Amino acid sequence: MSHINDLQISQLQENTHSKSDNNNSVLQMIERAVLVNSYPELANINDVAWANAIRTARQIKAPRGTTLMRGNAPMQQFMLLLTGTIRVYTPSKSGREITLYRVNPGDLCILSLNSLYQNRNYGVFAEAETDIYALGISAQDFQSVLNESEEFRNFVLSALNARLCDLMCLIQDTAFENLDLRLARLIDRLSKQGESLRVDITHQALARELGSTREMISRILKEFEQRKIIKLSRGFIDILSAESLKQLQDSK
Amino acid sequence: MSHINDLQISQLQENTHSKSDNNNSVLQMIERAVLVNSYPELANINDVAWANAIRTARQIKAPRGTTLMRGNAPMQQFMLLLTGTIRVYTPSKSGREITLYRVNPGDLCILSLNSLYQNRNYGVFAEAETDIYALGISAQDFQSVLNESEEFRNFVLSALNARLCDLMCLIQDTAFENLDLRLARLIDRLSKQGESLRVDITHQALARELGSTREMISRILKEFEQRKIIKLSRGFIDILSAESLKQLQDSK
Repeated sequence: MSHINDLQISQLQENTHSKSDNNNSVLQMIERAVLVNSYPELANINDVAWANAIRTARQIKAPRGTTLMRGNAPMQQFMLLLTGTIRVYTPSKSGREITLYRVNPGDLCILSLNSLYQNRNYGVFAEAETDIYALGISAQDFQSVLNESEEFRNFVLSALNARLCDLMCLIQDTAFENLDLRLARLIDRLSKQGESLRVDITHQALARELGSTREMISRILKEFEQRKIIKLSRGFIDILSAESLKQLQDSK
Repeated sequence: MSHINDLQISQLQENTHSKSDNNNSVLQMIERAVLVNSYPELANINDVAWANAIRTARQIKAPRGTTLMRGNAPMQQFMLLLTGTIRVYTPSKSGREITLYRVNPGDLCILSLNSLYQNRNYGVFAEAETDIYALGISAQDFQSVLNESEEFRNFVLSALNARLCDLMCLIQDTAFENLDLRLARLIDRLSKQGESLRVDITHQALARELGSTREMISRILKEFEQRKIIKLSRGFIDILSAESLKQLQDSK
C-alpha cells in the first residue's frame, strides 16, 4: 500500500502543470465535461470565486491502495472526486476495521472540512479503493467560494446532512442488528451493485466492511452455505437462492 | 410523556408575545444575557439578518419528557437552546434505544438542517431531558443569516463537523468495544459529570444510552458488584472503587 501526502500532491501538481499558464489549465475540455457530469449542482455555479477555485485546483492522481488520509493527519484541501472510489474507514486497536462510507464522484469529501473548522482527531482513514483522479481546492479557495456562492453553500450543507444520515443509519445497524443479518444485507447489496449472483469478495474484505473479524464472517458464511443459500469459493461467493437471502433479511 | 408539534409551538408563541410589539420583544434583557452566555460565537454577529432572526424568533418552552421530534417528522425551525438538555436517540424495532448525542445550550440542533436540506428520514427522536427553553428561528430566517453572515456559517459548519466527529466515535465504540467496557466508561463519565461517587440512574436508562437491554446491563452491573467495584441500589449506583473502574477501562 503506497502513501501520499500533501507535499507529494503538491510536487505532483508542480510537475504536471503551471498555475500561471492559462493554455495549460488544469481543466481541459474533457475534465470539465467530467466535472459537469459528476457534480451537476456545482457545474451551474456562475461565480468568480468558484471559477478561480477550479482554475487553480490541484490535480490529484493516486493509484488504487493509496492511503489518502490517516488518523490525525487531516487533508489540507477539498477534493472533488472525478473518477474512482475512496473508502473511509476506522480501525480498532485490535486490528479490526469498519467501513464508514465511500466517496464517489459527486460526493463531497466531508473529512476535508475538519481541517478548516476544528482539526479534531477523527481517527479516520481514507484509501483509494480504485485508481482515483480528483481536483484539490485549497482551504482558502474553499472558504472564498463558501462566502460567495449560495449554491455552493447549499451543496456543502446538503452533503453534510446526507452524511450525518448515513452515519446515524450505520449506528442503528451496528447497535441493533445481528451480524448475520448485516452480512446477508451486504452480500445482497453487492450482488445488486454488480448485477450478478456472483460476488467477488474475500471473507477478510467482508469483515472490514462490517467491523467484524474474518473468523466470525467465515463461520456465518459456512452456516449460510449449509442452508444452501450461498456457495463459497476462493475469492468469490455464488448466491444459490436470492429468495432465501431475502427471507433471511426479512425474518429478523 | 407529552408531545409538542409545530402548531402547538406556534400557538404558544402567539399567546405569549406579538411579533409587531417591540416593547414586548422575545428577547428581554435577561434572555439576551442567556443567549450571549450560551452562544458566545453568535452573540458577536453584527448583522441585520441575524438581528431580525432573533427578534422574530419563537419562544419554545417544553416540560421535561416532551417529545420534540419523532422519526420522520422533522423540526421546521432552528433551535437555539437557552436552558435544559435535549436527548437525541434512535429506537430499534425491538424496543431498544441508543442515545446518539445530547444538545446543550451552545449547541446547534443539527437535525433542524434536515428539514431545510434534504428531508431524509433520519428515524431519529428527540426528547426534552429536562424542562427546556429555546428560541426557534424559522427556516427562512436561518437561510437568510447563513447567506449574510460568515460568522454564522462558520458556527454552523463547525457544529456539523463536531457532530460528525461524535457520531464517528460512537460507531467505533459500538462496533469494536465490549458492552462491559462501554458501561464502565459511561458510569465513570456520569460520576464525573455529577461530581459524585453516587450516580442516580436506572438500569433501563443505562441500557437506553448504550443501545442494550435492561437484562444485559443488570447482568454486567451484578458482575461489577461481585467484584466490589460498585454497589447497586434502587435508582442509584455507588462507586466503591474508582480505581477498579478505571482499571476496567484500561484493561481492555
